[in-house]
Amino acid sequence: MTHVRVVGTGLIGASVGLALSRAGFRVSLVDPSPTAVAIARDMGAGEIAGDDHPDVVLVGAPPDVAAEVIAQQLQAHPDAVVTDVASVKEGVLGALTDLVDTADLARYVGSHPMAGRERSGAVAARADLFVGRTWVVCPRSENRAEHVEAVRRVAAATGASVVDLAARDHDEAVAAVSHLPQIAASLVAARLRDLPVDAVALAGQGLRDVTRIAESDPLLWTQILAGNARAVLPVVRAMAEDLSSVADALEDLTTGDGNGARNVLAQAISDGQLGHARIPGKHGGAPTTYATLVVVVPDEPGQLGRLFADVGEAGVNLEDLRLEHGAGAQVGLAELSVLPAAGEHLRDALTTKGWKVHE
Amino acid sequence: MTHVRVVGTGLIGASVGLALSRAGFRVSLVDPSPTAVAIARDMGAGEIAGDDHPDVVLVGAPPDVAAEVIAQQLQAHPDAVVTDVASVKEGVLGALTDLVDTADLARYVGSHPMAGRERSGAVAARADLFVGRTWVVCPRSENRAEHVEAVRRVAAATGASVVDLAARDHDEAVAAVSHLPQIAASLVAARLRDLPVDAVALAGQGLRDVTRIAESDPLLWTQILAGNARAVLPVVRAMAEDLSSVADALEDLTTGDGNGARNVLAQAISDGQLGHARIPGKHGGAPTTYATLVVVVPDEPGQLGRLFADVGEAGVNLEDLRLEHGAGAQVGLAELSVLPAAGEHLRDALTTKGWKVHE
Repeated sequence: MTHVRVVGTGLIGASVGLALSRAGFRVSLVDPSPTAVAIARDMGAGEIAGDDHPDVVLVGAPPDVAAEVIAQQLQAHPDAVVTDVASVKEGVLGALTDLVDTADLARYVGSHPMAGRERSGAVAARADLFVGRTWVVCPRSENRAEHVEAVRRVAAATGASVVDLAARDHDEAVAAVSHLPQIAASLVAARLRDLPVDAVALAGQGLRDVTRIAESDPLLWTQILAGNARAVLPVVRAMAEDLSSVADALEDLTTGDGNGARNVLAQAISDGQLGHARIPGKHGGAPTTYATLVVVVPDEPGQLGRLFADVGEAGVNLEDLRLEHGAGAQVGLAELSVLPAAGEHLRDALTTKGWKVHE
Repeated sequence: MTHVRVVGTGLIGASVGLALSRAGFRVSLVDPSPTAVAIARDMGAGEIAGDDHPDVVLVGAPPDVAAEVIAQQLQAHPDAVVTDVASVKEGVLGALTDLVDTADLARYVGSHPMAGRERSGAVAARADLFVGRTWVVCPRSENRAEHVEAVRRVAAATGASVVDLAARDHDEAVAAVSHLPQIAASLVAARLRDLPVDAVALAGQGLRDVTRIAESDPLLWTQILAGNARAVLPVVRAMAEDLSSVADALEDLTTGDGNGARNVLAQAISDGQLGHARIPGKHGGAPTTYATLVVVVPDEPGQLGRLFADVGEAGVNLEDLRLEHGAGAQVGLAELSVLPAAGEHLRDALTTKGWKVHE
């Protein structure tokens, strides 16, 4: 039985412990806080660590202390492979290189499970936090194949999809697909602080979608952005320049001759369409165009249940689903995305059951 | 029977015609394109207009020609109230002031239904496009009360929630809650154009939410942004400055001493939390904190149906709903938001039915 030591029983560490215990691994737990480690044990995340020898050590420390904790663990467990879950990878590796010798460094394989919650700490842990999420593993040429494989097995055992990526490539990818969206969402939301109440009341689904992640924790995100500053800087700078060009075009339209200004605006929206089209569809496949049905749903208990029971009875699988509500309305709209071939059949089936359906 | 003339049978005009015809209004239709007006008539949006006298004229022309069409209609129908549906209001009013005299201008009451679709044209029209959406009416002191009331009645008859707002207040509100989010979403999505495939593959729900509206039409959005340039400019400029401050902080962390840089990052995320908290909850009420349950849903036909049937059986109404999928995963997570008092009951009911539920 593989023995995994989880060092740091916060949200991610305790969730890994729960998932691995359930998957039949032996899990031992360490945390600077005796209370945190006791909570994780009581939740079923594993046993409290004794003086023994794990096969794999998983460091769940915050990004700004991860390298130091990894170095301690490499030295304390000379036969183990050590991994971590910090959301930036190159900075951790660089700091670690200054702390340990080449032989120890070869036993470190960085990784990053792309999962999280609004709440933090062991009490928020869930055994299925990683189910269906991507877990990036960052192998290096210095790593032994069986060490990389051991980390991949741990990641896969939590239910995550394991993807290999070099540390620098990982950091540049998350800068564009995670860190820049976070900054943009926060800055758009920040503009709402001083808006009159009747202006904020016009908020629609577009604003809600764009700003949902603006709820995130400032302390954690400061660590993430500071830890990935090198990779985040160019994408933030590029977006700041784009935004200034849009502002210049708007200014030209209000005070200047406006020549070429409309073209700048059209190009910005058009470039966004091109970028958006590259986002993969559900399940990591190629982008898919779905048939979309819009169904009017009275705002009463059981109506959504009735709708989805009817969808299920039609034998159609939903690829995506959105609910929309307008200010003050007593009905909602459910937007059902299905594979194009199933669209017509589903529309007919729902219409027969008395639903108002629009494409 | 109130007679409403719809001038311009694109998506919005034809949808208004469908909704009003269904609500028992007499609707007559005009469009520069004989084909467009015939399609709208065949869909049931109303009759083709003859040489008669409507009580209300609704102009559904694009923002950049709206003022001109409104002026024509005020002059052609000296007893009618004329409204429009352009998504910018002050520019239209300003242009109109140069085109008509004070007496005619007093019969114009601007409005803006906050609804739209990805597709355009009469063929995409829906009778329920406005159901549950907000429809802003912009009364002025020059308007007669019965004219304002006539426009409000037309808006309400489509199923929309009617809200009064001055033209300038409307334009400043939509600049912050609609136009800036559109620009930010497009610019974040534009960064994805040149990203390697395995980097785009790390896209998660956050990126999908932030960039969903980046699919929007460049031509329409160029007209909207150009038409509202005065109100959009200050919010875009302010966000560009915020973004430059974030970039400066990141640069300071990579090449400088980093003093104070972390504070700039923390402040940006924290200000976003404060702004986000001001977005009203469902149905235009005050922001509500819901209890959130996360349910694991196997990716098979009928599973969502079974889940929502079980939710309905528990007698609990869903306030909000999200589906999440990770790359390559064969299960999804359904995030159910319910009123706090109902959370525990729903968790117990679903657990009894065999669902894996997490809070």
